[in-house]
Amino acid sequence: MEYINNYIEENKDRFLEELFGLIRIPSVSSIKSHKPDMYKAAEYWKEMLLKSGADKAEVFDTPGNPVTYGEKMIDTALPTVLVYGHMDVMPVDPIEKWDSNPFEPEIRGGKIYARGADDDKGQSMMHAKAFELMVKTNTLPCNIKFMIEGEEEVGSPNLGKWCEENKEMLAADVILVSDTTMLAPDTPSITTGLRGLAYWQVEVTGPNRDLHSGMFGGAVANPINVLCSMIDKMVDKKGKVTIPGFYDDVLEVSSEERELLGRAPFDAEKYKKAIDVKELAGEEGFSTTEHTGIRPTFDVCGIWGGYTGEGAKTVLPSKAYAKISSRLVPNQDHLKIAELFKNHFENIAPKSVKVEVTSLHGGQGYVCPIDIPAYQAAEKAYTDVYGKRPVPVRSGGSIPIISTFEEVLGIKSVLMGFGLESDAIHSPNENYPLEQFLTGIKTIPLFYKYFVEMNKVQ
Amino acid sequence: MEYINNYIEENKDRFLEELFGLIRIPSVSSIKSHKPDMYKAAEYWKEMLLKSGADKAEVFDTPGNPVTYGEKMIDTALPTVLVYGHMDVMPVDPIEKWDSNPFEPEIRGGKIYARGADDDKGQSMMHAKAFELMVKTNTLPCNIKFMIEGEEEVGSPNLGKWCEENKEMLAADVILVSDTTMLAPDTPSITTGLRGLAYWQVEVTGPNRDLHSGMFGGAVANPINVLCSMIDKMVDKKGKVTIPGFYDDVLEVSSEERELLGRAPFDAEKYKKAIDVKELAGEEGFSTTEHTGIRPTFDVCGIWGGYTGEGAKTVLPSKAYAKISSRLVPNQDHLKIAELFKNHFENIAPKSVKVEVTSLHGGQGYVCPIDIPAYQAAEKAYTDVYGKRPVPVRSGGSIPIISTFEEVLGIKSVLMGFGLESDAIHSPNENYPLEQFLTGIKTIPLFYKYFVEMNKVQ
Repeated sequence: MEYINNYIEENKDRFLEELFGLIRIPSVSSIKSHKPDMYKAAEYWKEMLLKSGADKAEVFDTPGNPVTYGEKMIDTALPTVLVYGHMDVMPVDPIEKWDSNPFEPEIRGGKIYARGADDDKGQSMMHAKAFELMVKTNTLPCNIKFMIEGEEEVGSPNLGKWCEENKEMLAADVILVSDTTMLAPDTPSITTGLRGLAYWQVEVTGPNRDLHSGMFGGAVANPINVLCSMIDKMVDKKGKVTIPGFYDDVLEVSSEERELLGRAPFDAEKYKKAIDVKELAGEEGFSTTEHTGIRPTFDVCGIWGGYTGEGAKTVLPSKAYAKISSRLVPNQDHLKIAELFKNHFENIAPKSVKVEVTSLHGGQGYVCPIDIPAYQAAEKAYTDVYGKRPVPVRSGGSIPIISTFEEVLGIKSVLMGFGLESDAIHSPNENYPLEQFLTGIKTIPLFYKYFVEMNKVQ
Repeated sequence: MEYINNYIEENKDRFLEELFGLIRIPSVSSIKSHKPDMYKAAEYWKEMLLKSGADKAEVFDTPGNPVTYGEKMIDTALPTVLVYGHMDVMPVDPIEKWDSNPFEPEIRGGKIYARGADDDKGQSMMHAKAFELMVKTNTLPCNIKFMIEGEEEVGSPNLGKWCEENKEMLAADVILVSDTTMLAPDTPSITTGLRGLAYWQVEVTGPNRDLHSGMFGGAVANPINVLCSMIDKMVDKKGKVTIPGFYDDVLEVSSEERELLGRAPFDAEKYKKAIDVKELAGEEGFSTTEHTGIRPTFDVCGIWGGYTGEGAKTVLPSKAYAKISSRLVPNQDHLKIAELFKNHFENIAPKSVKVEVTSLHGGQGYVCPIDIPAYQAAEKAYTDVYGKRPVPVRSGGSIPIISTFEEVLGIKSVLMGFGLESDAIHSPNENYPLEQFLTGIKTIPLFYKYFVEMNKVQ
């Protein structure tokens, strides 16, 4: 590994500068006015792939945000690895809670602070730089392709179709992704399961205009009260979602596998302290690791309605809104769940209000078998760098496109995540430890080495 | 009544111009940055009272917004009427729902459209102009005092104390107020009851920062879900507020009086159509008129938390907020209710969240007996102008200061409202029919005439 360490040592300042350049582009995919930034980010990736050693690289239009594709084909007889990452990031609100400008990266205490520092600019950049390392040290053992998209944070609505249209170009033996976490800086892990997602916006309308809460209060249904009541009804006292049919397709995990999952280190006191809560919550009969790993959820991501300004305004509002999401598990189908929710939510609405449900996005869950060569190559790479075998874990997060890749391209993904839970992704002060960034670049070339060796063996 | 009609006919354009001048001052009391506007409005009132015939007028400071006081004392042996009104208005959001600038009055279809057109700039201005009319036509039969405050829409937090400090100056036989509605343009009514009010802001905190809803969702209590659940628990299936002790002091209205109240004309279909709802709501066992007239309520006036921007952001938020109000009825004490709510809300909070309850304001309910001379004088005045006897009604609204006047000054108030339910007070497109404004100015001098006559009789 000496050539790897040396190359990183000599080039790490430049690696960081290149990452910072990408971070400085505010490529927030959920806000339409940032569309030009999506193109800037796509061009930035194209230039970076070419500089790093790609034979060709190109920015593809889609009906939404662009995709950057690049490749270096050294021998069609050799295996091909397709790297997937995303250049788009989450919005930054509440902006006032950031200690520094989210789009001007700052290193403090060994961590890079910025929106996208981890998710996924930091993690995907590790692959570009590992690729450069292999090219420049003449150690690239196989073909490599990059597909960097701009709509992951809004559910990749256009990438599935784009993959279908470019199936041949994207042909590969495995998809390699860094967009997940590991258990701790000294406890490597590989994510073998991802939750799916369904996301809705609901609008509850009471009277046709805001009313005086004195003149009408008590006689006219208040849409905020009604929305609260409807939301409350969606989860019962045992923490079970009450939508009829919601659990019908949930893959029940065997008691043996639950026992294995239970071996992942988990310190409830530390976990509670880190987020400053006195008590955890969740579905009765399951552990915290299971709550996030193998069980579906029902969370309100946002709610608003009525007077939210300074002071006291007495009003019986006309409308109330909520953004609601369910994390889904294999084999729940997000389209089916979206429909079940919509029907149920409309059904339980009292006649005193009108209800509108809009599906904003969704994606399927995913499971990666731990006996395929690509998983085992990843396992060996981590073992070399960390001195211990990585633990397979079921993550609570969703990367909806991963299951689409399997469906459309017929390729499994291996999720070599180097993020940490403390990275605060999607939150103010998102950060990524420098150490994780550099260790990622160190580990990735070893994956390529072992992956090609294992393919030769077979 | 000819001298009244003539004077109004000759001066009505100027009356409107004077009202418009007041409306153009954006005196929103709940938004601190409008403080200078409160002083502008107070000075405007002072000048108007002097021009209209007051012997003296003065702007008084309070720890909050100013009060304008003015008087014309013609003979201390004669009765004295104290006119109360307010120069402050509600905020204008949602501003995008206004068809014209809320602070630039426009007359369309015989109605004045503007914030404060009715509540209470339009209605209080009727008293200034009726006063002018009586002075200029030498028909003022008694002493008259004006007290126009600037904090009614935020619960008059400083006026009680100011009244205490100026008790002697404010001495009067009755307080006359126009800040309520009548049943219809052809159905005069006098408000004999007002509801009290308690108003809180609640803050529910889950984790110490916004979390990734995938990583943590299902294991950590979501403060929005929790807030919704807590709000839902505050009212049971029968529409009863569940706060222990909430109904203990509610003045139960006799079946005879309920029968009388039931005689007020009420057309449920028209009422529902006007606000575009399919079904009304409210506490089981009471009619719509009773829901707003004699029963307390629990309404969420505003709610917010998490991601409320465009598109879909998956987040498990740190905080959720709501602004909540209860309309109270005699003899519920708003301070006691505020405390009961706070304790109950804190008690039912699960351990997985932290809860903070702040009382924003409150006021007591009020009942005016229909056998006092002042009520009867008002009744006669309406009868003269409308050709029918006004109906006594219990309003759902609150003018918290009215009960304070009784407590502090020992004076009953008569509520001669000329507003209509369609005036959309506190809402976008607040309006006040020109006809109501002019009829008010016509009716008020007759009240003075009858009030002084009745006092002579006694």
